[in-house]
Amino acid sequence: MRAPQNPNWEQNVRASFARQGFMRLIGAEILDCAPGRCALRVDWKAELTQQRGFLHGGVTAALADTAAGFAAYSLMPPNSAPLTVEFKINLMAPGIGDRFIASAQVVRSGRTLSVVECEVTAERGGQSTTVARMLATLICMENTSDAPGEPVRTSKPGGSR
Amino acid sequence: MRAPQNPNWEQNVRASFARQGFMRLIGAEILDCAPGRCALRVDWKAELTQQRGFLHGGVTAALADTAAGFAAYSLMPPNSAPLTVEFKINLMAPGIGDRFIASAQVVRSGRTLSVVECEVTAERGGQSTTVARMLATLICMENTSDAPGEPVRTSKPGGSR
Amino acid sequence: MRAPQNPNWEQNVRASFARQGFMRLIGAEILDCAPGRCALRVDWKAELTQQRGFLHGGVTAALADTAAGFAAYSLMPPNSAPLTVEFKINLMAPGIGDRFIASAQVVRSGRTLSVVECEVTAERGGQSTTVARMLATLICMENTSDAPGEPVRTSKPGGSR
Amino acid sequence: MRAPQNPNWEQNVRASFARQGFMRLIGAEILDCAPGRCALRVDWKAELTQQRGFLHGGVTAALADTAAGFAAYSLMPPNSAPLTVEFKINLMAPGIGDRFIASAQVVRSGRTLSVVECEVTAERGGQSTTVARMLATLICMENTSDAPGEPVRTSKPGGSR
Repeated sequence: MRAPQNPNWEQNVRASFARQGFMRLIGAEILDCAPGRCALRVDWKAELTQQRGFLHGGVTAALADTAAGFAAYSLMPPNSAPLTVEFKINLMAPGIGDRFIASAQVVRSGRTLSVVECEVTAERGGQSTTVARMLATLICMENTSDAPGEPVRTSKPGGSR
Repeated sequence: MRAPQNPNWEQNVRASFARQGFMRLIGAEILDCAPGRCALRVDWKAELTQQRGFLHGGVTAALADTAAGFAAYSLMPPNSAPLTVEFKINLMAPGIGDRFIASAQVVRSGRTLSVVECEVTAERGGQSTTVARMLATLICMENTSDAPGEPVRTSKPGGSR
Repeated sequence: MRAPQNPNWEQNVRASFARQGFMRLIGAEILDCAPGRCALRVDWKAELTQQRGFLHGGVTAALADTAAGFAAYSLMPPNSAPLTVEFKINLMAPGIGDRFIASAQVVRSGRTLSVVECEVTAERGGQSTTVARMLATLICMENTSDAPGEPVRTSKPGGSR
Repeated sequence: MRAPQNPNWEQNVRASFARQGFMRLIGAEILDCAPGRCALRVDWKAELTQQRGFLHGGVTAALADTAAGFAAYSLMPPNSAPLTVEFKINLMAPGIGDRFIASAQVVRSGRTLSVVECEVTAERGGQSTTVARMLATLICMENTSDAPGEPVRTSKPGGSR
């Protein structure tokens, strides 16, 4: 994987993750991060389920999207922020497990766009099952901040992104 | 839109939605449902945000995925359950707004597979902005139940879905 | 739809289409173009089929991708070129018909990224069937040319797109 | 990878490929096939280009879609046929090269649905560049034939797929 362009990449990833109210709400944590990679974990809880008691596909997708975002962010230059352009996810098995791990890896890191793959596995009793695969596109917003309280380039008049 | 095959479609949709722990967690509610359509709503809350304070893309996706599932479910026969096969979502604008509405509509309802489109809008001060568009594929699991505690056909030996 | 930024948008769209060797190979033609819209047509031929004699899904996708590209291009500024970042297509019915029409419409036209929806229909005996739906993301390459023989920004060192 | 369910899988794959008029038109050939895998190749030709002379993204997608279909077909039971439900492709670099190889691999082979990943590379002067990645969903049509001239289950009244 490429060398990071930002010496503070890990600090920035962890600070940005910590600011995500939604990751806190679902109880997700960073399992691992490296340049171009990020793994997040969430445990099964009744509050995260769909109608049959499995992990909600929306939680699976949110975890994978977030892991993808931080994998891409780790390779971006200083004074930039990642934004998900789009993603596609295949939910390949029901979300049955004690904990769920989303492992993202950058497959293309361009100046503007990054492409990231992510796999989500369900873990139970020492066994691991792939529950989802994602292919995502992210954009690097330059000359902006990943923190709140500053102008958002995406809402500039005359276009965006 | 096609006539529903299940006279109890609305009761089933509402009961299934009520069983989703995750929809309760994020405070989502059914705004509207009709055969082949479903609209869900969630209000902005700090617990649903990403690092800059906008609605987390994962919440946007989860809301859209859920609306798509119920739109498809409304057209399925009795004794069946919907399962998301995959979806693709474009996050077109930052999740800035007071409330967010995911409006799903079935564009193909087959015996096995359904295709559903969904748009998510952000509402603020009487203004509505499209924040996302989704294209999703769902499968109809026959001879099964949408409620927990019954055998899950997807885990049958010899394959699934 | 937005007003075009380039007074020569139509001339550029038609010239660019005419340069596509692949569109000529499959016999596609422009049925209609307008700012933010493009419709292309191809007739069924044995050379465009898959194993059962239906229109090959790859042809359906190529036609839709091309229509999407020109719909986006029509709204881009002078001295720019469209590039498909990614697309997702649902093949909803077999490609049975005498001719096939891909109708694309821009749903978001940003400074950098455009989002385009496209529907492909099969026509036979006065009847029209939806065979595919696509959701695509395109990027506007600025300060470049849509014609060959000039430097391609996408191959710049240090990243691209 | 799983053992094939059909002893004639390779013969069927090759016969089905040979029936595809469109693969013949673009001059594609099977580079390699194995249970759960398929690699196809096409050489650059002016007839396969977009407006700048690169391989048309639609050709890239068609090649990848076809490789994905045969990778899935190789694991299907006798008397069945593969049908692409949907795919998503990221075009990660311009189609610059002398030849292009689409390598598909099944990541989930269920009774009804298969999920396949595919990578397309451009080859030139001993160098290989990834130009695209695809994530596709295919359905196994049972009790049907992959050859023309027999009833198509997808057009059954009352639904399909």
